[in-house]
Amino acid sequence: MARRARNILFVMYDQLRFDYLGCAGHPHLKTPNFDRLAARGVRFTNAYVQSPICGASRMSFYTGRYVGSHGAAWNNYPLKAGEVTLGDHLRARGMDAVLIGKTHMKVDDAGLDRLGISRGGIIGTRIAECGFDARVRDDGLWAEGPDGPYDAKPSPYNAFLKARGYDSRNPWHDHANSGLSQERDADGRGDIESGWLMRNAGLAANVREEDAETPWLTDETLAFLSERREERRAVPWLCHVSYIKPHWPYIVPAPYHDMYGPEDVLPALRDERERADPNPVFEAFMQSRASRSFARDEVREAAIPAYMGLVRQCDDQFGRLLDTLEESGALDDTMIVVTSDHGDYLGDHWLGEKDLFHEPSVKVPLIIYDPSDEADATRGSTCDALVEAIDLAATFVDVAGRRDGEAPDLPGHILEGRSLLPWLHGERPADWRRAAISEYDYSCTPMADRLGVSVKDARLFMVFDGRYKLIHAEGGLPPMLFDLASDPSEFNDLGRDPAHAGEVARLRGLLADWGLRLSQRTTVSDTQILARRGGAGGRTGVLIGVHDEADASEEALAFYRGKAKPMAGSGSGAEQDEADQAE
Amino acid sequence: MARRARNILFVMYDQLRFDYLGCAGHPHLKTPNFDRLAARGVRFTNAYVQSPICGASRMSFYTGRYVGSHGAAWNNYPLKAGEVTLGDHLRARGMDAVLIGKTHMKVDDAGLDRLGISRGGIIGTRIAECGFDARVRDDGLWAEGPDGPYDAKPSPYNAFLKARGYDSRNPWHDHANSGLSQERDADGRGDIESGWLMRNAGLAANVREEDAETPWLTDETLAFLSERREERRAVPWLCHVSYIKPHWPYIVPAPYHDMYGPEDVLPALRDERERADPNPVFEAFMQSRASRSFARDEVREAAIPAYMGLVRQCDDQFGRLLDTLEESGALDDTMIVVTSDHGDYLGDHWLGEKDLFHEPSVKVPLIIYDPSDEADATRGSTCDALVEAIDLAATFVDVAGRRDGEAPDLPGHILEGRSLLPWLHGERPADWRRAAISEYDYSCTPMADRLGVSVKDARLFMVFDGRYKLIHAEGGLPPMLFDLASDPSEFNDLGRDPAHAGEVARLRGLLADWGLRLSQRTTVSDTQILARRGGAGGRTGVLIGVHDEADASEEALAFYRGKAKPMAGSGSGAEQDEADQAE
Repeated sequence: MARRARNILFVMYDQLRFDYLGCAGHPHLKTPNFDRLAARGVRFTNAYVQSPICGASRMSFYTGRYVGSHGAAWNNYPLKAGEVTLGDHLRARGMDAVLIGKTHMKVDDAGLDRLGISRGGIIGTRIAECGFDARVRDDGLWAEGPDGPYDAKPSPYNAFLKARGYDSRNPWHDHANSGLSQERDADGRGDIESGWLMRNAGLAANVREEDAETPWLTDETLAFLSERREERRAVPWLCHVSYIKPHWPYIVPAPYHDMYGPEDVLPALRDERERADPNPVFEAFMQSRASRSFARDEVREAAIPAYMGLVRQCDDQFGRLLDTLEESGALDDTMIVVTSDHGDYLGDHWLGEKDLFHEPSVKVPLIIYDPSDEADATRGSTCDALVEAIDLAATFVDVAGRRDGEAPDLPGHILEGRSLLPWLHGERPADWRRAAISEYDYSCTPMADRLGVSVKDARLFMVFDGRYKLIHAEGGLPPMLFDLASDPSEFNDLGRDPAHAGEVARLRGLLADWGLRLSQRTTVSDTQILARRGGAGGRTGVLIGVHDEADASEEALAFYRGKAKPMAGSGSGAEQDEADQAE
Repeated sequence: MARRARNILFVMYDQLRFDYLGCAGHPHLKTPNFDRLAARGVRFTNAYVQSPICGASRMSFYTGRYVGSHGAAWNNYPLKAGEVTLGDHLRARGMDAVLIGKTHMKVDDAGLDRLGISRGGIIGTRIAECGFDARVRDDGLWAEGPDGPYDAKPSPYNAFLKARGYDSRNPWHDHANSGLSQERDADGRGDIESGWLMRNAGLAANVREEDAETPWLTDETLAFLSERREERRAVPWLCHVSYIKPHWPYIVPAPYHDMYGPEDVLPALRDERERADPNPVFEAFMQSRASRSFARDEVREAAIPAYMGLVRQCDDQFGRLLDTLEESGALDDTMIVVTSDHGDYLGDHWLGEKDLFHEPSVKVPLIIYDPSDEADATRGSTCDALVEAIDLAATFVDVAGRRDGEAPDLPGHILEGRSLLPWLHGERPADWRRAAISEYDYSCTPMADRLGVSVKDARLFMVFDGRYKLIHAEGGLPPMLFDLASDPSEFNDLGRDPAHAGEVARLRGLLADWGLRLSQRTTVSDTQILARRGGAGGRTGVLIGVHDEADASEEALAFYRGKAKPMAGSGSGAEQDEADQAE
């Protein structure tokens, strides 16, 4: 029997850099399990997210639409109730869409109220879960401060830890994301050394390794796989396993906490040229606390080994998933995708965090294993096509909508990405996109104040055509431009160089084309429109521009033939009195 | 007591040209009542619709958003369930939004199903009525043909006519929009001479004048006004009186049917230059049946006098409304707006119908009477500011949201237009828009086939800066350009003239800026964003880029202080056994 993707395991890590994988060439970090997947699938080397920030990026992954199209442009900017999600598309094609982990979805409460949608019902619940059926929803940031918790929802992970005996009000922080001082009090307790402080990044997190977040979500996934296997249900599934790690806090339990050391930290990808007369946007982001921290070697040498330990833990746990799928035979009908929502500067370009569009931030790892026979030709290869995060939703809907031998069934009036199946099957689409677009909305950040831009203008756009990368800023700020052919490290900003004004204009032209794209005509499909186009000409009796019988079909006119009595006052003259009496 | 707008009478005609009003300078057509309004208010002489087609234009009027933002780009392309409407905004500010007449709203059935919204409930009903509470919903096109009715809803107007004794299956057609031959059968009945055939435009419609569509909707409005007056309710209202006329079929009852004759028809605004090497888009539209018909003098001489009669009837009926408001004292607290959804070429530029962007199509009449004292300075004046149809929603929400002396309350993250109150109050906003934008989606028309463009590319954009008007076409088609300063009649297309490439590029730049506008970040207000901007810095405990205690506030760190027991397997070494026992 021909192998083909029936189910989809869609694995996302949070803040995982594209180059922190063995198969991507990291010289010290070992990721044998990700490499194992890459050997069986295709590793995309030019995969870009639609926004280098969790919430906005994920809303694009989960809707298959650009940030400017769905509007949820930053963390906790709600996704409009009414936006069609990946889950909606898949269920309409007979596939379940299950969530285990993080989405960063903020529910549009005002929209639910306006539309009268009950939060308790299945529809309201799915909207709140960004279209998924949530087996576990945990966004992984259980911080708390003077203004209250960052995430006011109940914490499944904290509940899990408490059930496992971790005795604390917030074991997510006190155990999974903190170390412990060696000094103990009379009860054997030690001071919590918070993982929020990167000086503590080298400590072992005070949690049993098997209770850390990554193994916990892996266990949930294994339980899901086991249940589905035993149920032998007919319904295919997509399972979105969405890990919070290797996202900060940078701290990891033993044995990962000392698996890597300062000697494994690669030199920062930065250059003094970058700090000489920088673009004002770049300069503002270099002033952030995270950027100033990661400019210091002691910070990089503390945080990066912990980050590498977290990635290594992710890899080990991914190995458990892969082994299970292999042992159960599910590799024959399960597509597996590994990616991330964005990267992490880690001090490259004098920056911390993500937010801007240098490769360590906006490029993500993307490995896709397709079990189908058609994909045999590409196993173990890389693909350098310009791929966008929104292509995954299109790929998944393509998998769900295709039946053996059938044509793709893609709702192209809603999805803005393109299916990657042709690339996976060794085809080379002739009309692939000319540029990847990414957006960043910094309207609620202090950078907007620093740059003096309005709430509406605090927006950046990246246009990357495979060689040149333009960063366009609204609000009259100058652009940045990099030529990755001559400057792969992106040190030399040509955005204000008169000699490159032509390139800037050319890429702005691509951006202008993109800006006029059709993104909101989502209630009528191309097929429906073409059917209307064919059926014009007064078939519903609307006869436009018809002067006399010669201009319209007999069939159409037939509906308007008949006799009537003249009506009083209708200008028909003598018959008026009679009509008056008739009434 | 200071006068101010408490209620709003928002009157829309369908297909009423901007220049078919006495006050706009028509030499033969008399419109004393519209002129009366203009003498008390402001007539805007550069008011442009967001699309020269009923459905798309109206969805912009009713959402305050560009067509590319709401997506309902042509007639019967459904408006997304979830789009926020004028009615939503007004009700949130304590104002009712009542509909009498036409909206051309097509309900998003798939969206209602997906969101589980009941069609019978008040929310589903309002969504179906484009946000209004419909007293009467009648879109005015009760055509029928081989494919069934154009509009499958029940017809209130047909029900009214039947109740008034018009004995026919479809009295909308057989009486209100047809004449009658003089020959009678034994029962006194004559052949119906359909108003669909413009050769019949000179006949009197076979309906009593008081039962024609315009008086009928006027009566409904007078009844509404009377009820509200008697109720003395506290709730202010916007009443959208939305007439189908002077839209075709071009036929009108006596005495309007012969009030104007061929001698009153102005020469067609057309030039042989237009047919020499025309832009391919223009050429395709010149090939439509309506265009070919209106190129013939006999058609213009038949249809235009009927059109003028219809306008005159509209004016007389508007006079009834105005008289009633005046007599009841309601003029002191009622804003009155008169406008149209688009114009009608009537043979100008060798075109019929609307669809393209010459002034007779895309420019509309707009007269606003504001009762407030602040508007006294502008009474009887004209205003040549570049105004867009979407400005009306912003104006109405401004009226609803302002209380005496209070600042405007405009949801600028949803509405894309701007309040016209400053202009009405004699102010001249310094940062008014540089260009008006209009869009036209011809994806389901035969022109798309003729031009060989895809479903996605069958789109046109107008950019008009007050002097130059660019029509940009997607799909690689050339642009059109007119200089209205030297060529106010728009005969001389400069779009392919190398000497004007600079102007084309400049206007394309304005269009590109518009394309990158923020249009979908509608779930979070600017105020909410600014509040978040102020409240950064770890107030909810998310401590980014913190290396040690020096980087974070004591207040924030306090939440993370405490003591914990070391956990087995957490890498804390000797304490493992003890922790194991504790479990």
